[in-house]
Amino acid sequence: MTVTIIGIGLIGGSMAISLKESGFAGKIIGVDRIQDNLDKAIRRRLIDEDMDLERGIAEADVVILAIPVDGMISLLPRVMDLVDQQVVLDVGSTKYALAEGLRQHPKRGRYVGTHPMAGTENSGPEAAIPGLFDGRSCVLCDVADSDVDAVEITKKLYTALNMNLLYLDAYAHDIHCAYVSHISHISSFALALTVLEKEQDEGRIFDLASGGFGSSVRLAKSSPDMWVPIFEQNRDNVLDVLDEHINTLAQFRSLLIKKDFNKFRMMIEKANHIRKILK
Amino acid sequence: MTVTIIGIGLIGGSMAISLKESGFAGKIIGVDRIQDNLDKAIRRRLIDEDMDLERGIAEADVVILAIPVDGMISLLPRVMDLVDQQVVLDVGSTKYALAEGLRQHPKRGRYVGTHPMAGTENSGPEAAIPGLFDGRSCVLCDVADSDVDAVEITKKLYTALNMNLLYLDAYAHDIHCAYVSHISHISSFALALTVLEKEQDEGRIFDLASGGFGSSVRLAKSSPDMWVPIFEQNRDNVLDVLDEHINTLAQFRSLLIKKDFNKFRMMIEKANHIRKILK
Repeated sequence: MTVTIIGIGLIGGSMAISLKESGFAGKIIGVDRIQDNLDKAIRRRLIDEDMDLERGIAEADVVILAIPVDGMISLLPRVMDLVDQQVVLDVGSTKYALAEGLRQHPKRGRYVGTHPMAGTENSGPEAAIPGLFDGRSCVLCDVADSDVDAVEITKKLYTALNMNLLYLDAYAHDIHCAYVSHISHISSFALALTVLEKEQDEGRIFDLASGGFGSSVRLAKSSPDMWVPIFEQNRDNVLDVLDEHINTLAQFRSLLIKKDFNKFRMMIEKANHIRKILK
Repeated sequence: MTVTIIGIGLIGGSMAISLKESGFAGKIIGVDRIQDNLDKAIRRRLIDEDMDLERGIAEADVVILAIPVDGMISLLPRVMDLVDQQVVLDVGSTKYALAEGLRQHPKRGRYVGTHPMAGTENSGPEAAIPGLFDGRSCVLCDVADSDVDAVEITKKLYTALNMNLLYLDAYAHDIHCAYVSHISHISSFALALTVLEKEQDEGRIFDLASGGFGSSVRLAKSSPDMWVPIFEQNRDNVLDVLDEHINTLAQFRSLLIKKDFNKFRMMIEKANHIRKILK
């Protein structure tokens, strides 16, 4: 199959590696607004060829959109206008706004909304790595709105990436992701800011980061180009979870003020319950 | 050298492994309130022999206290009362209260307060692993209050564990650790509680945890036996940083409410600065 990837960054580039390696894709075509990304992708052999949008779509069996979700909102309908029998996937971290924008599109059936839940804090084609998706979860959204063959090809594609498939509607997807992904990023950004603010000595931060801080702020290195649009599109759900999170921290604060370490212990024991769910 | 380790858990057990492996310790003696821990430690060959406190100290060249910091407060003076020329180290995550409690002790010079900044979210002798301290930082506190030979032996010990040595006074240590370690744990506990509260479907949490949540809540698996006493002893510093952290989250919240995504972006860009400090 010929796979055209629009946006050759961390996700698009890593998909290119694994789709080629698994044999799913015979040919990978790269499309990117930034010529430098395409040049890097060619040099790294992530893609076989670069093309403009129209030709890239015309020559593809499968088209994958892997750009930030704000660009997706305007680009996806344009891509669908150019589609004949190709399957079109997006890999965005928010799904509802995108699905809504396409509801009336005559080619809606050729589109499958997906969210491969994998990534690192790095971005750009130089960040692409093999095995990024291995064993991770991929959400397929609103599959009843897609053509049966388009869903089948999508399932084959993510199975080739060795991902576990999950099915959710776009609305539920966005709520769940606010809980298990988006709030973690806000928390990490805030933690980094707090420490940068309070700890003026950068050497100290570096020296002492092995005390848990290093792993907690890994996500704080994430790109605003990717994340601001996610928070924009999932604002209501994120606000809801953020309120809850601030309340929980305020409870810890109040117990510290009151020196009520029995209740403090009970809250930690409750939090430990996460151990039963994750590993 | 004969090293007696009081408290054969994650830290004590992992030190036992590496001190033996590096050749620093010819013999490791284990002392533990819980006989089952000692039995496990013998079966895992973490220690050569178990003894009671008095004999363990009498036979040692170096005594290491590796128990939760609340137990340390009462046990450390007792240990010092039994000491002749042995060197005594503790490995607690808070240092000020401990140092204060020992200020007038006639044997103060034989004690060196240390904090090897390494760990995992697991505990007990079964959690002990090789290489835990490798390349991490170890803080030595108030070394001017210790005998020169005691400090020298301590430096050799942590160098044998392949740790990077740092020097701080106990008061400064506790402030820095509130920033770069303790707040990360509260944030992680709170995040786990938030998600456990909001996301009733445990299967979903598991399925979707690859979106950043898994790494953010790793610390939330940490034991309350270890952490409650840390928060108790470092309450004032932790409260100070926690206030700042809640304020920062409230800023993110307020920007979401106002849909001010330009300022939201600026905050993320500022948080990204952590990338220049950590890797």
